[in-house]
Amino acid sequence: MEDRIAYFNGRFMSIDKIRISPNDRGFLFADGVYEVIRSYKGKLFMYNEHIDRLKYSLSELKINFHNTASLKGIILELLRRNKLENVDATTYIQITRGEYERMLKFPPADVPPTVYIVPKPIQLDEQTIIKGIKAVSVEDVRWGRCDIKTVALLPNALAHQQAIEQGADIGLFTKDGNITEGTHVSVFGVKNGSLITYPAGKHILPSITRKVVKQLCEELNLELIEKAISLDSISDIDELFVVGTTPEITPVISVNDIIIANGKPGNITLMLQKAFNRFVGEL
Amino acid sequence: MEDRIAYFNGRFMSIDKIRISPNDRGFLFADGVYEVIRSYKGKLFMYNEHIDRLKYSLSELKINFHNTASLKGIILELLRRNKLENVDATTYIQITRGEYERMLKFPPADVPPTVYIVPKPIQLDEQTIIKGIKAVSVEDVRWGRCDIKTVALLPNALAHQQAIEQGADIGLFTKDGNITEGTHVSVFGVKNGSLITYPAGKHILPSITRKVVKQLCEELNLELIEKAISLDSISDIDELFVVGTTPEITPVISVNDIIIANGKPGNITLMLQKAFNRFVGEL
Repeated sequence: MEDRIAYFNGRFMSIDKIRISPNDRGFLFADGVYEVIRSYKGKLFMYNEHIDRLKYSLSELKINFHNTASLKGIILELLRRNKLENVDATTYIQITRGEYERMLKFPPADVPPTVYIVPKPIQLDEQTIIKGIKAVSVEDVRWGRCDIKTVALLPNALAHQQAIEQGADIGLFTKDGNITEGTHVSVFGVKNGSLITYPAGKHILPSITRKVVKQLCEELNLELIEKAISLDSISDIDELFVVGTTPEITPVISVNDIIIANGKPGNITLMLQKAFNRFVGEL
Repeated sequence: MEDRIAYFNGRFMSIDKIRISPNDRGFLFADGVYEVIRSYKGKLFMYNEHIDRLKYSLSELKINFHNTASLKGIILELLRRNKLENVDATTYIQITRGEYERMLKFPPADVPPTVYIVPKPIQLDEQTIIKGIKAVSVEDVRWGRCDIKTVALLPNALAHQQAIEQGADIGLFTKDGNITEGTHVSVFGVKNGSLITYPAGKHILPSITRKVVKQLCEELNLELIEKAISLDSISDIDELFVVGTTPEITPVISVNDIIIANGKPGNITLMLQKAFNRFVGEL
């Protein structure tokens, strides 16, 4: 894995050769943003949407990186150099406010941002998407701007680890008794044929796959209601699934050991999975 | 500045030679903790208290670094090598969960933490402590565990920058209308001869200087009430000051352009500053 070629501040180089300064604001302050872009056999999935979100994150943090037009060429070149053009992969992009003597205040405007981009092959367990996963609830103690995709992911790492230690595959953030989103995915429920998901806003990430599912719902004539799913209502819900760039549409079969419906992926989940695969096939 | 000698994972080296891996969890996830320890002419201030807090932070995040006993020798050696034994300095310590292929889950237990320690001289503007500083309120949107001193400082950096751009010296976090703490300091008010400061708990850092002030209040027979200071009550408060490792006890002369009392440091603030200087002199 570690002989991968990455892009770092204008150069392509082995990931082992890249060394971040201890004065990088990404290291000192989590002062940076990221994206993970999926490619199916070299074709970038929802590329423009990811770049739009990256621009939003950069703009909200006022990080001076404007050369987003250069990113597509870099990603495709990285996929080529790492022989990932014919497999499924994800490309990780991280941009920080750059390197400067430690101080909370932003550095001068001419300090260049740090740009780090690296792809890796995806090894998905097919069985996971077919059989579904177990979830547990974790308290959502994240900050008030979860709509920005920053690298301040400590609460996500802690919550995910907590879920793993409790024997689950994933953690679902719960705020005031309601499920907001997963540690790295969006959450959808199904009740009486309608889909339910947490409303867009500052409490959740504007997920790209959430957007795709929204579009698929329209195509399939499924009602999508943007409202909170309370943790208490889980025992009564018909279907539950999570969506994201890597897990695509993955059924959730239990939450805190409460089995969802009959413990098997539901019909609407399966229907959306098929529609998603068609959508990807049309790339 | 940049020819300073730092400590990095067991070795003393020039800060320029240190390069963090892009897979360091400090860089990827803000998965790390820090401390800043003051030294007055080579004498470490409240050293044990800082190490106790570091241990607390490490323990809350379950980071496997237990060799805290080695830190004192390293810090003193760094002060010596950087010729900071006879001046005022601060030493920055950052410990992250180490370097591992990017995943939210914790890496295996045998992955060593990253340890980075570097001192720098303090250049304080004496006039600041004498004349006081201007503050503005900033919304406290930080996560729910501000009692852990993590490097996920993005909200602090954003808030501090916002304060600077508004022409202030410092930002005061306000949650539900109450001042919790500053972007990098604790906040104290004085009303009718009594001190007021936000109660200890998950909303604020267990500040060491706050602890010193608490002790000085006991010695000076001053009442200290742990309760929230509402932003609305600022126009009516007698004195306001912030405390921290670097600013010590610094008067605040205005908040959001509302002048505190007569715009000059108050008597109790001055009394505490004197007591603080005595306390430091006794080191």
